[in-house]
Amino acid sequence: MKRAKNRTVNVGIIGFGTVGTGTARILLDKQADLERKAGFPVRLRRIADLDIKRKRGIKLPAGILSRDVEALVRDPEIDIIVELIGGTRAARDVILKALKNGKHVVTANKALLAEAGQELFRTAAKNRAVIGFEASVAGSIPIIKVIRESLIGNSISNIYGIINGTANYILTKMTEEGLDFGTALGNAQARGYAEADPTFDIEGIDSAHKLTILAALAFGIPFSFKKIYTEGITGITPLDIHFASELGYKIKLLAIAKHADGAIELRVHPTMLPADDLISSVSGVFNAIFVEGDATGEALYYGRGAGEMPTGSAVVSDIIDIGRRIVSGADTWLQGITMTARTDLKIKKMDDIRTCYYLRISALDKPGVLSRISGILGSHNISIRSMIQKGRKKEKAVPLVMMTHEARERDMRQALREINRLSIVSGRTMYLRVEGDED
Amino acid sequence: MKRAKNRTVNVGIIGFGTVGTGTARILLDKQADLERKAGFPVRLRRIADLDIKRKRGIKLPAGILSRDVEALVRDPEIDIIVELIGGTRAARDVILKALKNGKHVVTANKALLAEAGQELFRTAAKNRAVIGFEASVAGSIPIIKVIRESLIGNSISNIYGIINGTANYILTKMTEEGLDFGTALGNAQARGYAEADPTFDIEGIDSAHKLTILAALAFGIPFSFKKIYTEGITGITPLDIHFASELGYKIKLLAIAKHADGAIELRVHPTMLPADDLISSVSGVFNAIFVEGDATGEALYYGRGAGEMPTGSAVVSDIIDIGRRIVSGADTWLQGITMTARTDLKIKKMDDIRTCYYLRISALDKPGVLSRISGILGSHNISIRSMIQKGRKKEKAVPLVMMTHEARERDMRQALREINRLSIVSGRTMYLRVEGDED
Repeated sequence: MKRAKNRTVNVGIIGFGTVGTGTARILLDKQADLERKAGFPVRLRRIADLDIKRKRGIKLPAGILSRDVEALVRDPEIDIIVELIGGTRAARDVILKALKNGKHVVTANKALLAEAGQELFRTAAKNRAVIGFEASVAGSIPIIKVIRESLIGNSISNIYGIINGTANYILTKMTEEGLDFGTALGNAQARGYAEADPTFDIEGIDSAHKLTILAALAFGIPFSFKKIYTEGITGITPLDIHFASELGYKIKLLAIAKHADGAIELRVHPTMLPADDLISSVSGVFNAIFVEGDATGEALYYGRGAGEMPTGSAVVSDIIDIGRRIVSGADTWLQGITMTARTDLKIKKMDDIRTCYYLRISALDKPGVLSRISGILGSHNISIRSMIQKGRKKEKAVPLVMMTHEARERDMRQALREINRLSIVSGRTMYLRVEGDED
Repeated sequence: MKRAKNRTVNVGIIGFGTVGTGTARILLDKQADLERKAGFPVRLRRIADLDIKRKRGIKLPAGILSRDVEALVRDPEIDIIVELIGGTRAARDVILKALKNGKHVVTANKALLAEAGQELFRTAAKNRAVIGFEASVAGSIPIIKVIRESLIGNSISNIYGIINGTANYILTKMTEEGLDFGTALGNAQARGYAEADPTFDIEGIDSAHKLTILAALAFGIPFSFKKIYTEGITGITPLDIHFASELGYKIKLLAIAKHADGAIELRVHPTMLPADDLISSVSGVFNAIFVEGDATGEALYYGRGAGEMPTGSAVVSDIIDIGRRIVSGADTWLQGITMTARTDLKIKKMDDIRTCYYLRISALDKPGVLSRISGILGSHNISIRSMIQKGRKKEKAVPLVMMTHEARERDMRQALREINRLSIVSGRTMYLRVEGDED
């Protein structure tokens, strides 16, 4: 990298959607302010998007918007390319080309990083380029920088959080207004918080993409998207939300990464959390991430996880960080995350994790039922911590709700297979994992 | 700065107390881990302290601990000097000398930065050196980095929080166990959370030191410690805690900085916050800082504000940041905070701030009293939002508690002078400012 003091840092944006618009808005509106704070000028030189007609409510300098992605990626004047087209195919091509052209890249593309991160960071290292990806996880929460820089003196044992605002909005609506899942989803779609095809958000896939990135940073492991156990929120019923509340819990879609006994747990699933846990108070589209380090102890970071300006703010922070290194003539870079990848840490199989459970069994209201069920649980080393049976309906199915002590997932699944086969049990038993409880 | 790829970064610590021990522990225990993550080796070369006998429960390499501060500051091998002696006189000398010797400095000394920051940062700039001070505010919460780097694309309108763990511990004990102030303070001292002379913590001075630093960063203003309105928690009674709780509030010692109408509010005082505000859930010695930026919206950062390892972790993050720049041969630096100081922003006089208030008036229980008091408030443009009078004792003094709509501080003070002079009022009226409420 050539030393180039006081020179201007030039930026090109590919993808002029929500986040692209937010990023452009900050770079243009705050031009003077950014220069004062950073100590060097940053200029938005080009924007490329297939749609150059749509109004974005932003006044661009003449001639910077075009449909020509190729020209932008090749432009020798551009130092940093911001990839905001999303998806994994075209975005991958653009980023690889940009890196090979010696450009630095900033991206918010968690799906691409989770699936092809290894290749992208390897290519970046080879070309002495940087990939900034603060915007890829939890929008305005600077969790990437916090883990890489602020917590560098820590061994992280535990990182979990709400990193999908859409799912949290739906669960919040279900909790606060007693809506069923479908109605709450429709509500989120009407307000623009959920896409027409909400699969990635409600099935936990988006959270798993982000968890892939967090775990790679926190534990120095390779990107492990395919090894993450992922379960969405479509099966959560108002009945479960009601019982959770009665027992003093909230149901949240959590992404969880834990380091224990030389192995890593990676999982995304709806989770019961004590109502007085700070994360339980995180409602609507907000995100929050809890991190436990051996030096810092417990910490929590809370903020908006998506949206034009919050995510644009994260993109701009990456642009300035990279710009500062360009201008300062720094010739080494913060290590890319795969270059330090540890291969000594195994990812635990979901069958092997241990946690407490909530069970909602639809059982006939007749004598002996509880003894049958608790007998099966006991034979699989699962003990019951508390139990509620509400609404007596002799000889009819009523919900029998149990909280267990810590048990092994494999044992729980085997026990539930047996329980679900009982003639006194109707329908499949609902089970949720519990976090944040003292066992 | 000479380019020096793959070279070792050498560190000297002055002050081997709590934070010095934590810092040394991380640098020694995590040596290999830090090198793997940072990409270069960091070595603890020297520690200087007047007391070289006391056991700190840490095994140091032979010969690195001495009483010779001068030798450490002059040692040509040392790149970064960590100042952890505290106080403002000797610490200032050490830092100035180190900077003039071309060394970078890391410090946790908020009192010194608040009082002499201008001079220190000017000296650093002149010597092309960096001062790292992440550890000076809120221990393990990386608020310095977040404001300077992550939120660089934002105009911050509002930053407030709990940044003194001792005061928060005392208020938490008073709230949860009904203790009076003196008992709670004794409790904090017994547990090592408060010093023998607790003045700085309980009178809000420590919070004001930290707020000075936060405001300089958030708004780009000069260090303004002397202009901060500072009020401690010694006047808070169990009765106020009780009424706060009854009205749905908690009492917290907040440090508040707001930017509105081209002026800055800077104040530290006990504050009533709605009980469902996230900051209200922050208990014990924990810290939390709320920041509102125009792009990010609302954000909250929560963690341990003090202690050997949390603060040591912050010191180490600064060491690695500075080390990375040394090793990369960067020849410009993140702007020091005073170099961008804005002089166009005035600090508001306390008399001119507007807020809602809680009043606890000790008034005789007889007809006409409420009309007299509300008449005085009304004549000063203060209107009452709600009122409680508990425990009837005819013709005796009983607490009359009021919540007001937003009013001006000057008006409130004048009204209270008149109210306190009334013969039907005994003793001084307690008043607290309220934040986080919709008016």
